Amino acid sequence: MDIGILVIGNELTSGMTQDTNSSFIARELHAQGWRVSAVMIVGDDRDAIKRGLDYLLEISDALVVAGGLGPTEDDITTAAVAGAFELDLYTDEAVLQQLKGRFSSLGIPWTENNAKQAMFPEGADIIDNPIGSACGFLQDRDGRPVAVIPGVPAEARKMFSDGVISIFRDKIAYREHVAKRTIKIFGRTESRIDQTLSHEDLEILGVSIGFYPRFPETHLVVTSRGEYRERVEENLRVICERIEGKFHRYIFGYDDDTMEGVVAALLTDRGLTLSVAESCTGGLITDRITDVPGSSVFLERGVVTYSNTSKVELLGVPASIIAEHGAVSEETAVLMAEGVKGVAGTDIGLATTGIAGPGGGTEEKPVGTVFIALSAGEDTICRRFLFRWDRRRIKEMSSQIALNMLRRFLAGEEID
Amino acid sequence: MDIGILVIGNELTSGMTQDTNSSFIARELHAQGWRVSAVMIVGDDRDAIKRGLDYLLEISDALVVAGGLGPTEDDITTAAVAGAFELDLYTDEAVLQQLKGRFSSLGIPWTENNAKQAMFPEGADIIDNPIGSACGFLQDRDGRPVAVIPGVPAEARKMFSDGVISIFRDKIAYREHVAKRTIKIFGRTESRIDQTLSHEDLEILGVSIGFYPRFPETHLVVTSRGEYRERVEENLRVICERIEGKFHRYIFGYDDDTMEGVVAALLTDRGLTLSVAESCTGGLITDRITDVPGSSVFLERGVVTYSNTSKVELLGVPASIIAEHGAVSEETAVLMAEGVKGVAGTDIGLATTGIAGPGGGTEEKPVGTVFIALSAGEDTICRRFLFRWDRRRIKEMSSQIALNMLRRFLAGEEID
Repeated sequence: MDIGILVIGNELTSGMTQDTNSSFIARELHAQGWRVSAVMIVGDDRDAIKRGLDYLLEISDALVVAGGLGPTEDDITTAAVAGAFELDLYTDEAVLQQLKGRFSSLGIPWTENNAKQAMFPEGADIIDNPIGSACGFLQDRDGRPVAVIPGVPAEARKMFSDGVISIFRDKIAYREHVAKRTIKIFGRTESRIDQTLSHEDLEILGVSIGFYPRFPETHLVVTSRGEYRERVEENLRVICERIEGKFHRYIFGYDDDTMEGVVAALLTDRGLTLSVAESCTGGLITDRITDVPGSSVFLERGVVTYSNTSKVELLGVPASIIAEHGAVSEETAVLMAEGVKGVAGTDIGLATTGIAGPGGGTEEKPVGTVFIALSAGEDTICRRFLFRWDRRRIKEMSSQIALNMLRRFLAGEEID
Repeated sequence: MDIGILVIGNELTSGMTQDTNSSFIARELHAQGWRVSAVMIVGDDRDAIKRGLDYLLEISDALVVAGGLGPTEDDITTAAVAGAFELDLYTDEAVLQQLKGRFSSLGIPWTENNAKQAMFPEGADIIDNPIGSACGFLQDRDGRPVAVIPGVPAEARKMFSDGVISIFRDKIAYREHVAKRTIKIFGRTESRIDQTLSHEDLEILGVSIGFYPRFPETHLVVTSRGEYRERVEENLRVICERIEGKFHRYIFGYDDDTMEGVVAALLTDRGLTLSVAESCTGGLITDRITDVPGSSVFLERGVVTYSNTSKVELLGVPASIIAEHGAVSEETAVLMAEGVKGVAGTDIGLATTGIAGPGGGTEEKPVGTVFIALSAGEDTICRRFLFRWDRRRIKEMSSQIALNMLRRFLAGEEID
């Protein structure tokens, strides 16, 4: 079943307000196993609304229309829908009395323009609004249900989830089963992954894969559809296992997992403590770690050693090492990781030092040069990177690599 | 001039991702004095793209198409546009060489599917992508320009603002002058601001104001339009001055300013140094500060003192104070700010301590209790807050208040 979404409002076509209703409605429809034929956003304009309705009805089995049901003059959705379908408007007495009662109980004086909200096209079924004054309505159009709801996000969401979904479900027989899994990958690009998957296999199994780059990660959403729930879930499992077989070492999580959440869970499970010494990442690593509830259990401290003095004082990095090799060097990174671990008395020390730019680069160490070190027990490893993004992205990528290095270490995996 | 926007991607029609490109593009078009005829969002589907193009071209003078220019199989926008316009595809050798060069400089192996990104419909003008691999293109369709750009928001925004706008401007006789200013406010809500502005005055002057809440800030975009450039600019100035008169103390910046950028500029101007001791904000304050190029000039160090031990060791907060008043207390916050300032030898010390939740609250100090302290010279001020958001928002609001406190101090303004 293909469903069209028509969202109405000048505030949307002017870009003044970000439409969030269509995305919410699309997600809910998708979860029901229905497809969105198209989303259209038009202004509060009779012609545009009529054209949008005509277009969407041609390619859809049902429509959701949101917005323009308020009491003010620019709210013309009800009249526009009636006009498009060549229907007269009538006043629903029950809704009118309910509206007047609502106004009096809120102590707001009744004005006649509000009566507009009690008017509906002939033959409409009214959809209750439990949290606002604008009722919605359902109109049948040659066997295709058209549900009209207000645009206020809280009202649209509630009326769609509680009312429209079940109306649509009643109106149609066929229901598709959908199972979905998001696989979160770091260290492999979209095109590398895409090339190794056979599209024929996917088609046979009714499974599709969407790539969602979320710098610096790639998220794969694997979606399986079909008539029988068990088959749908089995096909999803088969494809996910194939992807895991190929990309195991690059998969850090699933669905709602975050890199920092996975690292936090591993540290908590193993009862290990962590301290962090950051130079170029400037606190981003501990910021991410402390987004995880309960991180105080394992995070002893972080230090942002932006000055050389602070590297000496807080981490015990000898000034002579910094003078000889530079603050951005393997030697300094290693001593930062070992230093913070020793001073904080933690099991693990993590450190970054680099040149995030735009200034500060040299020929030997250009902007984007970053050293990341991990120290645990007697061992310290350090890796050198050269990134070519802007300052923020260099920080994001460096924090991601540091956390991933820690994740691999905790999972007992080899570190590149 | 009416412009249609077509956004393409299965991640959008499935509701997986919220489309933000159309709203951005609509806002930019609106600022140019152009109208959006309709926004349409369709999946990665040849038929849907063709139908959408046909529909929008009928009601528009120009089109912007965004999304589906990636290297993977589901990215079919270029081929779909060529198909809809009955044009063959060709490989642009210059773009191909540029792509290969990009891959090799990033150390990513070249795979043949990437060559797709060097293919364009015959007769297309290529639109450069300065920050990503997917170039866009401009296609003329019976005198109507159709600009196709990638869907990655950062790329879409940059290519639209820097490229497409001026292409469109060249293609049409330009009518209206537009001047625009964004006023960035912290500490006053949208409705409080809206109430104090007279809509009649704005209408007379041809000035509109858009509210863009960007937690925890509110951005006001003031747009002035009219026939004569000087008048347009004068009207903008008049309205901005009125807003400044009323909200001066809540305005921290304009246009591209950020709170951390403003603070960094003030510190640099005054030649003052800073150190930061963070508990509940977990490094977010220094992360934000170090996003500003050149912050190493004034930021001596940050410490994320998540454990009590680290508060004692790194800041010299007496263990007895923590034991008596708690790690989350005015006493501890004050000693953290004074401690980090003293140990780091900086002019200013900034500190946060609080309960970001979801656990750890008590009746006396519920989740959301945060103390923020600023120490400079002989003086230390400390404020207590109670926030009712989730962990991340508590961190964001706390870092914002700390930076704003520092901003007001540096600007010689009173601190609430």
